[in-house]
Amino acid sequence: MNITIKNAIISVYDKTCIDDLLPLLKKLNVTIFATNGTLKYIKSKGYEAKDLHELTNFPPLFNGRVKTLHPLILGGILYKKDNSNDQLEAEKYNIPSFDLVVVDLYPFKETTKATSDLNEIIEKVDIGGITLIRAAAKNFFYTTVVAEASLIKELVDILSTHNGVISYEQREYFAKRAFEVTSLYDLAIFLYLNKLPYLDIKLYPHEKLRYGENPHQEGYFIGNLSEVLEKIQGKELSYNNILDIESAINLLAEFNDPTCVIIKHNNPCAVASNNEGGLSLWHKTLQCDPISSFGGIIATNVPISLDLAKEIDKIFFEILIAYEFADNVIEYFKKKPARILIKLKQLTKSTYTFKSIINGILIQSANNTTLNENELEIPTNAKPTTEDIENLIFSFKIAKHCKSNAIVITKDKQLIGAGFGQTSRIDATNIAIQKAKSMQFNTENAYLASDGFFPFTDCIELALNNGIKKIIQPGGSINDKKIIEYCNNNNIVMLLTKIRHFKH
Amino acid sequence: MNITIKNAIISVYDKTCIDDLLPLLKKLNVTIFATNGTLKYIKSKGYEAKDLHELTNFPPLFNGRVKTLHPLILGGILYKKDNSNDQLEAEKYNIPSFDLVVVDLYPFKETTKATSDLNEIIEKVDIGGITLIRAAAKNFFYTTVVAEASLIKELVDILSTHNGVISYEQREYFAKRAFEVTSLYDLAIFLYLNKLPYLDIKLYPHEKLRYGENPHQEGYFIGNLSEVLEKIQGKELSYNNILDIESAINLLAEFNDPTCVIIKHNNPCAVASNNEGGLSLWHKTLQCDPISSFGGIIATNVPISLDLAKEIDKIFFEILIAYEFADNVIEYFKKKPARILIKLKQLTKSTYTFKSIINGILIQSANNTTLNENELEIPTNAKPTTEDIENLIFSFKIAKHCKSNAIVITKDKQLIGAGFGQTSRIDATNIAIQKAKSMQFNTENAYLASDGFFPFTDCIELALNNGIKKIIQPGGSINDKKIIEYCNNNNIVMLLTKIRHFKH
Repeated sequence: MNITIKNAIISVYDKTCIDDLLPLLKKLNVTIFATNGTLKYIKSKGYEAKDLHELTNFPPLFNGRVKTLHPLILGGILYKKDNSNDQLEAEKYNIPSFDLVVVDLYPFKETTKATSDLNEIIEKVDIGGITLIRAAAKNFFYTTVVAEASLIKELVDILSTHNGVISYEQREYFAKRAFEVTSLYDLAIFLYLNKLPYLDIKLYPHEKLRYGENPHQEGYFIGNLSEVLEKIQGKELSYNNILDIESAINLLAEFNDPTCVIIKHNNPCAVASNNEGGLSLWHKTLQCDPISSFGGIIATNVPISLDLAKEIDKIFFEILIAYEFADNVIEYFKKKPARILIKLKQLTKSTYTFKSIINGILIQSANNTTLNENELEIPTNAKPTTEDIENLIFSFKIAKHCKSNAIVITKDKQLIGAGFGQTSRIDATNIAIQKAKSMQFNTENAYLASDGFFPFTDCIELALNNGIKKIIQPGGSINDKKIIEYCNNNNIVMLLTKIRHFKH
Repeated sequence: MNITIKNAIISVYDKTCIDDLLPLLKKLNVTIFATNGTLKYIKSKGYEAKDLHELTNFPPLFNGRVKTLHPLILGGILYKKDNSNDQLEAEKYNIPSFDLVVVDLYPFKETTKATSDLNEIIEKVDIGGITLIRAAAKNFFYTTVVAEASLIKELVDILSTHNGVISYEQREYFAKRAFEVTSLYDLAIFLYLNKLPYLDIKLYPHEKLRYGENPHQEGYFIGNLSEVLEKIQGKELSYNNILDIESAINLLAEFNDPTCVIIKHNNPCAVASNNEGGLSLWHKTLQCDPISSFGGIIATNVPISLDLAKEIDKIFFEILIAYEFADNVIEYFKKKPARILIKLKQLTKSTYTFKSIINGILIQSANNTTLNENELEIPTNAKPTTEDIENLIFSFKIAKHCKSNAIVITKDKQLIGAGFGQTSRIDATNIAIQKAKSMQFNTENAYLASDGFFPFTDCIELALNNGIKKIIQPGGSINDKKIIEYCNNNNIVMLLTKIRHFKH
């Protein structure tokens, strides 16, 4: 059912958000109802509006805590406009039919960030606004609700192109958005009162994915990928694609030099940096592990030229992520629709992450810490060169993005072997070394990073037996003294980061 | 500030939830205000109550859609009871001071499960009840709010032991619970309207953990672990403990025979089943990997006797999880406070799981599927014995709980080698075999499971070269035909499950 807007209630905290709406409503001959601040603002802009308090014949109470909470107002929003009993009742009590409700709520979250005065914060718990929104959203068969300032533009677009008429689907859409606003508003109040961190949750847009981690599981993505990246071409992203994309862009974000990474099953199978980017960077990257790279998620901070694209395209990859694709690259891949191309827009890191777990939710501040070179401790007699430090930091950055326990071996800013997701550190070390050897890398003088401390000297001994004498690790074991002693006896350079990077 | 309850508003959907509250309020001389159904119910039980419609001199409107939404009612909840201006205004309009608001909301979620009639469902979007709750919660400096039936018992306990007096902290607690109720209520409406699955979210209780995955990260747990397990003794659970406990109990839940599992870093490092449990089961378990088991999370479905406890205690473990601990076991561990003992109560599996990810949330139905023996496909000429099938299913269950890519090797219902979290299946196979050998296991005639299909014959060839000729895997590769041919040429038994178990 299409509905022509005739009567609107407007109640907004940020007054300027209605600047574009007012002339449109005037043009459409919509009667505006408002109270207090919003009413004054509308009139100050030269538009007409009726005072809801005159309609109800009831003044605002208790310093404005009770303004719109009145049966004539909420009845006018909530009644079934095509039900004859409701129509008679509305007539009897002289209740207008409100077709549109526009609300911008008190800024609760922002207030808690600006002050710690609980009285002031509580005053910003919006009661009337939420009730207007929820009543209008409930009655979306008849009523249009705009629940926050950011949605007003969408309303203006619809009303101006459809001459004040709004469809069922559009009203339903605004109702969906309304319950997004109200649920997140009260979640914020809950988190604040309970001294829990705010979570950056967006409930819109969202999509049903083809399936979850496996074909027999349903999958959904809620949120806005397009704020972070733009899919240039390719099939619908899968659940596992999204997991891997996050791993890839988080890993890539660690590096400033021209760098390329390849992710498989959430773990890095290739990482390389050099000074010039281009083909040489790609060859260096692919060389890390040409077998696992098959079907991988590639991410790079260098521009993708046509030459580079053609070279990368020689292997089967699932996704290629970059900040910049040449126009002819986009043209080139059009003939290959199985390839997903993603343009990275910006990297907005979450402050907190969360996941569901046995009967609850685990929340943590994201592991956004970066290694401060000046805070590195060098407890061994053998000291690193500047080049050593650079290379060890390179290794440790990769270890941060491997599932724990992780051991990473690099050489000349190229990942040559990694053991990750292991139940013991010695297994991880062994796997990393075997991996390097199986790829024909020489571990002699390579660099080794560990995401957690070494519990014993065994891993270091194993590394040493394979020619590795430059190591970086968090430190913090009760055996640290013994380990450093072992390093000193064997001319090994060891850096302690004092930052652990477990990731599960 | 302590407040003595004098005037209460009660508005409940489930009337019987107030059966214990009514005699108490009578005893405390509290005046009850209600409307319609709740009012009738109270009177039918022989208690007195005032009709809110008499107070407002306003009838219910629009078939009950507007009942309590009136400035005199909400003003009576919302005004500052010790502010002289507010007091004067309340007096002028003859507004009572409501100290207590008890609400049980329309059952929105339940209605959506019982019917698909949108009209009926929309009628169960509670507007008045939510407004009463939010107004009372906002004004918790003065007002007590009970936002759902399950909280009434707590109110009754407080009022009966404190003679109708309620403290600031208690009112604050009820306000916190109120915003839990309102945010989850609107989230449910949002999910329903948007055709998204309901998520089993509880926001209470919650705790700040010592830290997150790493010491430099904050950590929080929101939810109710104690419904699932009881911590008998030991230090506060860490973020990583909770991750590992979930992995341990989910893995354990796969088995009906006496079984013991050990988890490290979310992956199984030991799994064994036998027929008798007891010491022999423990020795079989520990033998899987005595090195990684150090500091592990142990979970078993057999009772912990004192003998068994003492034997387990010979290694350092972090957590021991079981359904049953003998009294003398609990006594024994009291001298060892570093050990965490957890009694498993029941296994409530989530229907949906979720996690935050780049600018959004990934949701999926939980991987709760169980392998149906009858649906196994046996495409090879060589056929498995009943014993083979049992052992292969045992292996596949373990593979399901390993990070992908995973290859699991077992023998006589004992995990002898696993490769998990790998970027290629051949690496995972190689690691599993090397692991078995390093633990002095003979892989001859062992069983091998893969969590995903084999892309090529290479893994099978590697297995065969190590004496493994019984394999279980999902199947589904474009190379399946070649792989089965290879099996047939080499007298290998292969079972296809047609269920993939990726886990990241």
